[in-house]
Amino acid sequence: MARGKEATKEVEWRIKVEDDTLKSKVVGCMWAVTAGLALKLCKFVKKAWELGVNDPRKFIHCLKVGIALSAVSLFYYWKPLYDGVGGNAMWAVMTVVVVFEYTAGATIYKTVNRMCGTSLAGFLGIGVHWVASRAGEQFEPIIVGVSLFLLASAATFSRFIPTIKARFDYGAMIFILTFCLVSISGYRVDELLVMAQYRMFTIIIGSILCIIVSLVIRPIWAGFELFVLVTGNLDKLANSLQCCVAQYFDGSETPDEDSDKQLLGYKCVLSSKATEESMANLARWEPSHGRFNFRHPWRQYVKIGASMRSCASCLDALIGCINSDNKASDEMKKNMKSISMKVGADCASVIREVANTMRKMRKSSKLDIRVTEMNSAAEELRSLLSCYPNTVNTPSHNAKCSTQTETAPSDIPLAAKVEISLMQIVQVVTVASLLIEIVARVEGIVEAVEELSDLANFQPEMCVKSKQHSPDSKISPDQQNDEETDRTLQMV
Amino acid sequence: MARGKEATKEVEWRIKVEDDTLKSKVVGCMWAVTAGLALKLCKFVKKAWELGVNDPRKFIHCLKVGIALSAVSLFYYWKPLYDGVGGNAMWAVMTVVVVFEYTAGATIYKTVNRMCGTSLAGFLGIGVHWVASRAGEQFEPIIVGVSLFLLASAATFSRFIPTIKARFDYGAMIFILTFCLVSISGYRVDELLVMAQYRMFTIIIGSILCIIVSLVIRPIWAGFELFVLVTGNLDKLANSLQCCVAQYFDGSETPDEDSDKQLLGYKCVLSSKATEESMANLARWEPSHGRFNFRHPWRQYVKIGASMRSCASCLDALIGCINSDNKASDEMKKNMKSISMKVGADCASVIREVANTMRKMRKSSKLDIRVTEMNSAAEELRSLLSCYPNTVNTPSHNAKCSTQTETAPSDIPLAAKVEISLMQIVQVVTVASLLIEIVARVEGIVEAVEELSDLANFQPEMCVKSKQHSPDSKISPDQQNDEETDRTLQMV
Repeated sequence: MARGKEATKEVEWRIKVEDDTLKSKVVGCMWAVTAGLALKLCKFVKKAWELGVNDPRKFIHCLKVGIALSAVSLFYYWKPLYDGVGGNAMWAVMTVVVVFEYTAGATIYKTVNRMCGTSLAGFLGIGVHWVASRAGEQFEPIIVGVSLFLLASAATFSRFIPTIKARFDYGAMIFILTFCLVSISGYRVDELLVMAQYRMFTIIIGSILCIIVSLVIRPIWAGFELFVLVTGNLDKLANSLQCCVAQYFDGSETPDEDSDKQLLGYKCVLSSKATEESMANLARWEPSHGRFNFRHPWRQYVKIGASMRSCASCLDALIGCINSDNKASDEMKKNMKSISMKVGADCASVIREVANTMRKMRKSSKLDIRVTEMNSAAEELRSLLSCYPNTVNTPSHNAKCSTQTETAPSDIPLAAKVEISLMQIVQVVTVASLLIEIVARVEGIVEAVEELSDLANFQPEMCVKSKQHSPDSKISPDQQNDEETDRTLQMV
Repeated sequence: MARGKEATKEVEWRIKVEDDTLKSKVVGCMWAVTAGLALKLCKFVKKAWELGVNDPRKFIHCLKVGIALSAVSLFYYWKPLYDGVGGNAMWAVMTVVVVFEYTAGATIYKTVNRMCGTSLAGFLGIGVHWVASRAGEQFEPIIVGVSLFLLASAATFSRFIPTIKARFDYGAMIFILTFCLVSISGYRVDELLVMAQYRMFTIIIGSILCIIVSLVIRPIWAGFELFVLVTGNLDKLANSLQCCVAQYFDGSETPDEDSDKQLLGYKCVLSSKATEESMANLARWEPSHGRFNFRHPWRQYVKIGASMRSCASCLDALIGCINSDNKASDEMKKNMKSISMKVGADCASVIREVANTMRKMRKSSKLDIRVTEMNSAAEELRSLLSCYPNTVNTPSHNAKCSTQTETAPSDIPLAAKVEISLMQIVQVVTVASLLIEIVARVEGIVEAVEELSDLANFQPEMCVKSKQHSPDSKISPDQQNDEETDRTLQMV
């Protein structure tokens, strides 16, 4: 018996020990999982925090949402206000949550759409309800149901039409929503008119609150964002272009990270179409702000963006050709170097001048000169190409090269001595002719910007120059916002 | 007196006449305005109608919305149902209006987000309300207000984080909305838990209804749309490429409208980035449909799109160079014609084969051969370039040209007789080297599609060939949908 008891004890002890190890294992496992999750969460929060630090306006937007919601919640907390809207405060809260957007343009677009959609659908709904209620109890659901089906289908279809989609997409949805609620509710709610009145009233209150908070506390204008995006992209394109040509012809230096970043700036240009279009759609709702009038030609910025993309895709092909295996002879590169780099630099300076025109909102006096310079550099490049092999085959042809630069002729005799194969010059020729094509596309950008300057009535620079000495408040926002500009561009 | 009376009468008559002419003028004017408006409206309706006729699925979507709304309105009309949801039928209607989207993926995304956001915020809101109600009447608004401010700000900020924005943007908004309504309403509504329960219940009913209608009545899958868009764009790119090369080298024929349309097809490729990304985001929510599994690698389609765009931007540069003033000599063109056109056709056939691989969802046995063919054609083009001027300068070099085609050598001696200037060949050389660059980028597309075929476990074509005789239901949807495909592409 004693031995039996001992054995039982031993087993119990064993079970206990096993139980303990199991327990400690489970606990350890849970700790590990928790720690892992916490670590992941920490990383996520850190990343999110960095996102906000890089663009503090995001934090400000969040605070603005908090403020608007706190303000609208007073309609619940303050008894007189709550009673004043007949217990419909919910709609004000809902309006603020749904309507408050990052940019002022988006907020205005949504408030206007919400108010118009609600009132239009409200009237129609009440009308349908009135007709239906007079048709007898049997027909009421049928009339309401059919009208609901037809109007909802029609409104849904209208959202496919591009012009309506761009301006009234949200309004159409709200129209359907309100019409449903009003026309169907009428079947159960007795005081339909009073309810509709209160709802409309609360929606207006919510909308006005949103607009005030959005426009008063550090407003973020879609138009200004678009402006910053396009002008910033112009700079990036100019840098990429110049950097690419310089890297190719000064091939000796190893590209560092900074210049690599510059080189790839044009990728932003290629990928910003959707952002530009949505910004331009929202910007048209914004009132006059900064140096932009109410009817500033925002659509033109989309056109400028398109011309930039056309230029950037050519640059993309150029960079592709440069990175291909097929390398050019150093000799040929040397001959073309100075003029090609001049073309690259001239293109870049034209693009920068165009960006300056947009920033200053004044017709640049230098732009025409820069464009002429760029074109004559392109012409030189073209004539260098045309003279090149003739100097190999028939040196007497040199007389033809009248437009050549001063540096080129000294190189050509050297080149003439070497026997070149076409393969060795293919890359340089391609680079040169893509550069000439880029020049043509840069002219497209210039045209688009000139159209903008006509549409927006930019003043010639001369007229305004005298004013520049006085502190001009209309310019400062832009200068202040240089830093912000960088941040916005990182965001895109 | 009589004369006075007569004069008065005359004046009256004059006034009457003037009044009449004014009236008729006003009436005429109103008629003109009305007629003008009616005409505009007619045009608008006609345009909208055409939009629907071109893609009847839009009409079907509108009918689906109508059906869903009619179904959900039963919750008002049918007394037992109305009482069953405690008079909260409004939330079901609202859910249907807000959540029902064009594609099944978007509808599922919104329903899942709405349900998750609502339930999470509901629990949190009730928790906060419970804590606040125990803190005394004085502190209640403060606790609720502060938690509202913090949570709303945090949720708003989360919408800026890319991963959350792509998957839970709508959910975050609904979270804020529900949290506000629950936590604040608690201050005025007595039976908060009951209300929350009913609302959650009606939202679930509305969501399920939407999903059923969306998935059962001719569903439009975001994934399938993405698939059709990408494969269609591949075809367009192939056509553009082949058409562009053919037009350049067969320059004699005047381009007709049809070939012009084909030539510009690549523009669709350049502008479809945003559509592709949103489709890929929505497609991941969709269940298995047609030949696509639940976890089909939709992101890879975006990558394929990116590689296509890189190819298309090179083609854009090529077309730009072709259209420039600087024309090539016919002689040179003739020499390069056959091989360049072969490269163009080979690229196009590789792209088409890649599109076929995606359509059949089978690893193509011909793809490798096609790619090898394309590469060897590119190599031939390269070697033709490298041999070209050597034949001018040193005809003995001919031995080097071992990889040349059979047609080329017969042309070269002709060319060798003419003295060429570089200017005359610049364009052809550029076209050739851009074609070589395009070949490299087409390989990028091939790589992306091969990655897709690995990720999605495409079977080798051989294994499935034997099965092709049996009616395979998994293939038919694609064949059926060829017509739809065309329509979708017109839509984009």
